[in-house]
Amino acid sequence: MKKEVFDPWEVSGDIDYGKLVKKFGVSHLRELPEVFEKNVLFRRKVVFAHRDIQRILEAKKKGKKFVMMTGLMPTGKFHIGHMLVAQQMIFWQKLGAKVYIAVADIEAHNTRNQSLKESREIAIEQYIKNYIALGLNLKNCEIYFQSDRSRDGKKAGVYYRLQNLLARHVTFNEFKGVYGDVTPGKMLSALLQASDMLHSQLPELEGPCPVVVPVGIDQDPHLRLARDLSQRIKESKFVQISSTYNVFMPGLKGGKMSSSDGSSFIAMTDSAKEVESKVKKYAFSGGRETLDEHRKKGGNPDVDVSYQYLKMFFEDDDKKLKKIYDDYKSGKMLTSELKEILIEKLNAFLKNHQKKLKEITKKDIEKFLDN
Amino acid sequence: MKKEVFDPWEVSGDIDYGKLVKKFGVSHLRELPEVFEKNVLFRRKVVFAHRDIQRILEAKKKGKKFVMMTGLMPTGKFHIGHMLVAQQMIFWQKLGAKVYIAVADIEAHNTRNQSLKESREIAIEQYIKNYIALGLNLKNCEIYFQSDRSRDGKKAGVYYRLQNLLARHVTFNEFKGVYGDVTPGKMLSALLQASDMLHSQLPELEGPCPVVVPVGIDQDPHLRLARDLSQRIKESKFVQISSTYNVFMPGLKGGKMSSSDGSSFIAMTDSAKEVESKVKKYAFSGGRETLDEHRKKGGNPDVDVSYQYLKMFFEDDDKKLKKIYDDYKSGKMLTSELKEILIEKLNAFLKNHQKKLKEITKKDIEKFLDN
Repeated sequence: MKKEVFDPWEVSGDIDYGKLVKKFGVSHLRELPEVFEKNVLFRRKVVFAHRDIQRILEAKKKGKKFVMMTGLMPTGKFHIGHMLVAQQMIFWQKLGAKVYIAVADIEAHNTRNQSLKESREIAIEQYIKNYIALGLNLKNCEIYFQSDRSRDGKKAGVYYRLQNLLARHVTFNEFKGVYGDVTPGKMLSALLQASDMLHSQLPELEGPCPVVVPVGIDQDPHLRLARDLSQRIKESKFVQISSTYNVFMPGLKGGKMSSSDGSSFIAMTDSAKEVESKVKKYAFSGGRETLDEHRKKGGNPDVDVSYQYLKMFFEDDDKKLKKIYDDYKSGKMLTSELKEILIEKLNAFLKNHQKKLKEITKKDIEKFLDN
Repeated sequence: MKKEVFDPWEVSGDIDYGKLVKKFGVSHLRELPEVFEKNVLFRRKVVFAHRDIQRILEAKKKGKKFVMMTGLMPTGKFHIGHMLVAQQMIFWQKLGAKVYIAVADIEAHNTRNQSLKESREIAIEQYIKNYIALGLNLKNCEIYFQSDRSRDGKKAGVYYRLQNLLARHVTFNEFKGVYGDVTPGKMLSALLQASDMLHSQLPELEGPCPVVVPVGIDQDPHLRLARDLSQRIKESKFVQISSTYNVFMPGLKGGKMSSSDGSSFIAMTDSAKEVESKVKKYAFSGGRETLDEHRKKGGNPDVDVSYQYLKMFFEDDDKKLKKIYDDYKSGKMLTSELKEILIEKLNAFLKNHQKKLKEITKKDIEKFLDN
């Protein structure tokens, strides 16, 4: 087992999700309503844990308003790694959530010195276009740029006021407790994220209502901080926020998917040839060293990236997926065959997706951002 | 000498201004152009020190744009203590400065739990009305509420973005060095003040230009922080900010003027009777215990509050002021006589001022705040 580094800014080493569930005090997702079981991400425990999800289920049951909140970092190309949150976002929207999306352009500006203009361009061309192609409806969305909460000045006011107010209700020791060592920059960034997660409940926006934030479990410190602080603020009432946790999606080569390394992901705009070449060349396999050994001892689908991608997104049918799992594990299916299945599924998906992308114009999006 | 506490949040004990000038590395104000000498606050060294004021003098000389930046805490009644900054504000505006005024409603909200609506009301009814009656012209002003940078969302964006950007360029140790011990709340408040002082130079507002911030010398840590940080930001160019420092205005009873203690100040709305009664009853005097002793040894005008008020605001004529000083010091003038002079001057001033106040409507002000 590799040395484990685990905070919102870095994750490395092997991850024991069971241990993390205990350590962070989150709960396994169990006995969800049928609509969740129909979604592969929930059914297959890709989304595996939660805090306080019952609030959301109750709101849904009673037909009451609830919010799904997430963010995007406007850098690089949109790739299949981004689909993990996007698919959850769309799931929650279809379930009835109002969707809040924070475009972290201040974060991109501060950490990467990327101009706000460039962030806006990338957010629209890469992220929002793909969200729409995947099924997001901009009509029940509040997409905002951290730098201006663009629709009006009042919203910018309440959003940043909350950041400043939250700062009054936290101590340095708490920051250290939650994040380990921090800098002033990380502290303000954490407070801004807490404001992202909480501000939809301010009277100027939705008012107090359940909010669910789907994240990777490495982001849980942000949730813990926001949850703790929200209950100390006397000036505004906040319904305690809920969260769900997904496993990490491995990069093509295993390990981390990195937006700055094109061979670690499949971009939504990759051609069929690129997909074929990337999967064949890079996809980390659970196969054996030799064909003989593979046939005899079988492969390991649990670490095989092609299998993981099929499980997460590209093979809906549980029976077919199980057959792939069993065949690969028994040695009946070779790595090359498994990769062929992924290539075919991926390219069929991308062909359809790219066709949708072409039909979406920047103009269609801008009108939802500016008024 | 009392124990000296001295930071932006508390000042107590006797103050040695010469020592502070050395300690903080600011400079005595010397050899100012004639227009400054015509103003009693500069001529009489009530405003006694500065940093980099030459930048402002040069801009004025060359007819270039410059900004005066200050803030107001919207609590309590406007009183003669507030005149000290107000008179400087008006002086700088007449000299050609564009005036920026931050209404610290976030600060009032966070530290006193005062609603933003109440802050707005107090800012307009108490502060801005009095500024106008004293001579401020709202036409060359940018008055903004910290909570919303109200005129448009873009300005809110750049203002708070700057706060978050500044946080990236500071360490906790620097905060400790500048402020002694800090909390996250004080840290964000200090960063917001730095943003107040610097954001007028952002390209979305005035662009880089000289800015002067007139303060009491206890506020210098905020200036040092803002100055240091501004020169580290690569994304925007900031002309180093200038500042001037005034002495403290004593409360009526000596010591601190406190907005929550009506007997420590004269409010702009006090009646002639109240003024007479307050001065006679409370004004700290430099006189002797008995009439005989006073006649023989003389009084001490340097600690006499009535004399200080005459010097700061109510006796323009240097010769007359000197005569009062000499007569009081020699014992020729009694405390009761000195108080009578102040009462007369004060009431003449207030009569005229209250007449002006009546003519200013909330509507006259709102139109400058909302568009």
